Amino acid sequence: MSFSTLLQTLQSIVGPAHVLIESADNDLVQYVRDWRGRERGVALAVVRPNSTEQVAAVVKACAASNKAGSGVSIVPQGGNTGMVVGSTPDASGTQIVLSLQRMNNVRKLDGGNGTITLDAGCVLQNVQQACFDAGYLFPLSLGSQGSCTIGGNLGTNAGGTQVVRFGNTRELCLGLEVVTAQGEIWSGLSGLRKDNTGYDLRDLFIGAEGTLGIITGATMKMYPLPAAKLIAFAVLPSLDAAVSLLQLAQKHLSAGLTGFEVMGQFALSLVGKHFPQQRVPFLGTAFSGVVAPYCVVLENSDQESEAHAKAQFERLLEEAMEAGHVLDAVVAENMTQAKQLWHIRESIPLAQAQEGLNIKHDISIPVSSIPEFVRVTDAKLAESFPGARLVNYGHLGDGNLHYNVQAPEGADQAEFLETQEPGVNALVFDMVMQFQGSISAEHGIGSLKVEKLPHYKSPVAMELMRTIKRALDPQNMMNPGRVIEV
Amino acid sequence: MSFSTLLQTLQSIVGPAHVLIESADNDLVQYVRDWRGRERGVALAVVRPNSTEQVAAVVKACAASNKAGSGVSIVPQGGNTGMVVGSTPDASGTQIVLSLQRMNNVRKLDGGNGTITLDAGCVLQNVQQACFDAGYLFPLSLGSQGSCTIGGNLGTNAGGTQVVRFGNTRELCLGLEVVTAQGEIWSGLSGLRKDNTGYDLRDLFIGAEGTLGIITGATMKMYPLPAAKLIAFAVLPSLDAAVSLLQLAQKHLSAGLTGFEVMGQFALSLVGKHFPQQRVPFLGTAFSGVVAPYCVVLENSDQESEAHAKAQFERLLEEAMEAGHVLDAVVAENMTQAKQLWHIRESIPLAQAQEGLNIKHDISIPVSSIPEFVRVTDAKLAESFPGARLVNYGHLGDGNLHYNVQAPEGADQAEFLETQEPGVNALVFDMVMQFQGSISAEHGIGSLKVEKLPHYKSPVAMELMRTIKRALDPQNMMNPGRVIEV
Repeated sequence: MSFSTLLQTLQSIVGPAHVLIESADNDLVQYVRDWRGRERGVALAVVRPNSTEQVAAVVKACAASNKAGSGVSIVPQGGNTGMVVGSTPDASGTQIVLSLQRMNNVRKLDGGNGTITLDAGCVLQNVQQACFDAGYLFPLSLGSQGSCTIGGNLGTNAGGTQVVRFGNTRELCLGLEVVTAQGEIWSGLSGLRKDNTGYDLRDLFIGAEGTLGIITGATMKMYPLPAAKLIAFAVLPSLDAAVSLLQLAQKHLSAGLTGFEVMGQFALSLVGKHFPQQRVPFLGTAFSGVVAPYCVVLENSDQESEAHAKAQFERLLEEAMEAGHVLDAVVAENMTQAKQLWHIRESIPLAQAQEGLNIKHDISIPVSSIPEFVRVTDAKLAESFPGARLVNYGHLGDGNLHYNVQAPEGADQAEFLETQEPGVNALVFDMVMQFQGSISAEHGIGSLKVEKLPHYKSPVAMELMRTIKRALDPQNMMNPGRVIEV
Repeated sequence: MSFSTLLQTLQSIVGPAHVLIESADNDLVQYVRDWRGRERGVALAVVRPNSTEQVAAVVKACAASNKAGSGVSIVPQGGNTGMVVGSTPDASGTQIVLSLQRMNNVRKLDGGNGTITLDAGCVLQNVQQACFDAGYLFPLSLGSQGSCTIGGNLGTNAGGTQVVRFGNTRELCLGLEVVTAQGEIWSGLSGLRKDNTGYDLRDLFIGAEGTLGIITGATMKMYPLPAAKLIAFAVLPSLDAAVSLLQLAQKHLSAGLTGFEVMGQFALSLVGKHFPQQRVPFLGTAFSGVVAPYCVVLENSDQESEAHAKAQFERLLEEAMEAGHVLDAVVAENMTQAKQLWHIRESIPLAQAQEGLNIKHDISIPVSSIPEFVRVTDAKLAESFPGARLVNYGHLGDGNLHYNVQAPEGADQAEFLETQEPGVNALVFDMVMQFQGSISAEHGIGSLKVEKLPHYKSPVAMELMRTIKRALDPQNMMNPGRVIEV
């Protein structure tokens, strides 16, 4: 089957208006360039189905074409906001981008069961809003929530800022609808909290980045809205103190601790430098003559009342200050202040981009080992890359650091990135392995890390993954070259 | 390779004392008869390795023997307390029981990371105790905890009484060590809360009942111990009221709600009849002339104080009584009373056994649909099986009911079981499907439900499962005939 025959078939499935071809009048950049702008590929076509049945028919058509030797493959795409170049086509021109964006309906909201069933193309922010409007909380929350889709969140098992309480996207999902590599529809849209009838297919597709099948729908958990939410911004003498504060907060607040983000002073200083209108608390303030190296944002969600939340929070901070884990802290007095404090944390990636190119990491380490990991790795980086600056921040409650490396002050940043990235990556990832961590905590593998993965994952795990991929997608047609090479 | 050659090899791996053969002097009943006494199989041998390396060597030896045509296969076994005949050998005499009981060490307890790493053969109660001794809570809790092992809990994704807050065993696990069907060791003992480096192998082995590989170790989550724990026993006008009470409790107590068990009046009356020393509250008490049909046990775990827990609990019960969800309630005044109230709930299965044989179900339904499901199914059963009595109780917070059917009063119970079980099962399971539920919420499939599963699961799901099984265990050597027939 030729490409033109395939394209005709696809047009007959989704309608000619929804098979987009790159041309002088039709710039497909939003579909073919990755979010961070690292790579731009070439799509054979962008196909935009509006139902699960259409997705299945598209996959069947591609499978038939592939069987006839066309070499076509499929790249599923949601909001195209991924960080690891996993949802854009390669340069071959043989890949179909299958965009789920037109599938964006809430199928069912069941308050009594605490669940919402959605099309995969629903934008995360709209899902949050739909739940809120019905009196529920949908806790998944991340920077790209205005664009990313729930299908993409599931495909990459997205993390975000509420994981310390609610888990990753995986933990929020009860059931999936998936189109397999054969174009069959698996209707696994369960609203059940317990179902032990065989293998956990759901979790196999979650986080597989579209390499085993295409997620077309999902049933997700909702939670009761909290009665009050408080934010504190605390300055700490060390990363060890941050780990101690985390434990104390978990003991006192239990599941009320819904956010725990750590930020290094250099990361915060970049926010102060590039966004001076944001008044960063304690910036440059010395305690006993020394500028404290870390700050933490804590979020306390309370089911009872604002008064109760405040009393709880004050008790925690007092105890933490007495124990020396916290040097000083501010607690937001109202919603506006709370948003401002969160906004400082959220502005770090932008401030970092303003400062120039940098080498990004998304690593996780057992929480208890983080202080030692940072001590040792900081020292090794300083030795091997003199002057390199560390933009260290992240979700300490989950053991997840964005441990990013910025060129020395005044250095040519592009050159630093080009010449030093492999060395910096190797050093950081080797240390991550020594501390039994992960080289991708929440962003996934995509094509960006696909060649690195075999160096940092056991051969037995790689072989198990390869066996699963070959079994479920024997044509290697689903997002090939991502996650694992077969 | 003959069986005798294989047995010699196994003796050389684990030592002759740990290859047990049935004989007049050596009754292997504890290994070859299932927990509920439904079936007794014949083991070629019971092999008791004491290390992961020994497990791997045993699997390799069996795989080689199997390749040479012996037809040997492996049944992994922990405490042998499963409910679905999944951990005992069949009658063929060609199956090795691989007992993990000698692998029972705590490998590491990491308080700062909130994790404990264990051999698979650790008995659940010992795990709870080890965590408690270190100042932590291990929340998994079930009837057989004095005998069952953490490996068995993982293999079957066990549920229990704390799922409403902490999830199933799956949700408590961060990493696994597994011996594959090829006898390779996958060391996936992660203590990470976030790790997006490829397919979710962990969750594939969890709940697979030993059919894809043998779990030899695990890293599990621990939680802070609560400051106080309160128990209430409430009597309700209907199952609809129970669902409303659940929602109210989740709103007020949030994650403080650690248990929510429902019990029908007939189930409670059996406890009253067979264990009269247990004073069941509200038994036979009429409210407005009618005996209320359901009671609920609620458990509130509080991180703050007993006083706070009491205030919270009273507020909840007052609001529930005002709304008519609760007719009356008792709150345990001390630990002894609390244990007594829980003990009533835990005594239902025993009371039921005292009353005679019965047809057991372990079903789940979306929580919001439970009242309607029970209404409709009760009526259908009454029509088709006049006089049959319903022992209905379970984990309402998870949508999981043990909806058991007892013979009519005075009927021959063995005859009822023999003649009516297929019809009762078919009726109940068909209704479960109509309400989008599961025919096995927490017990698994084993061999007991393996033939039923294809009737109640979609062909696409069955085919995905079969494909995975064939790919990972091409010799069909790992617990064959359980979960799925290939």
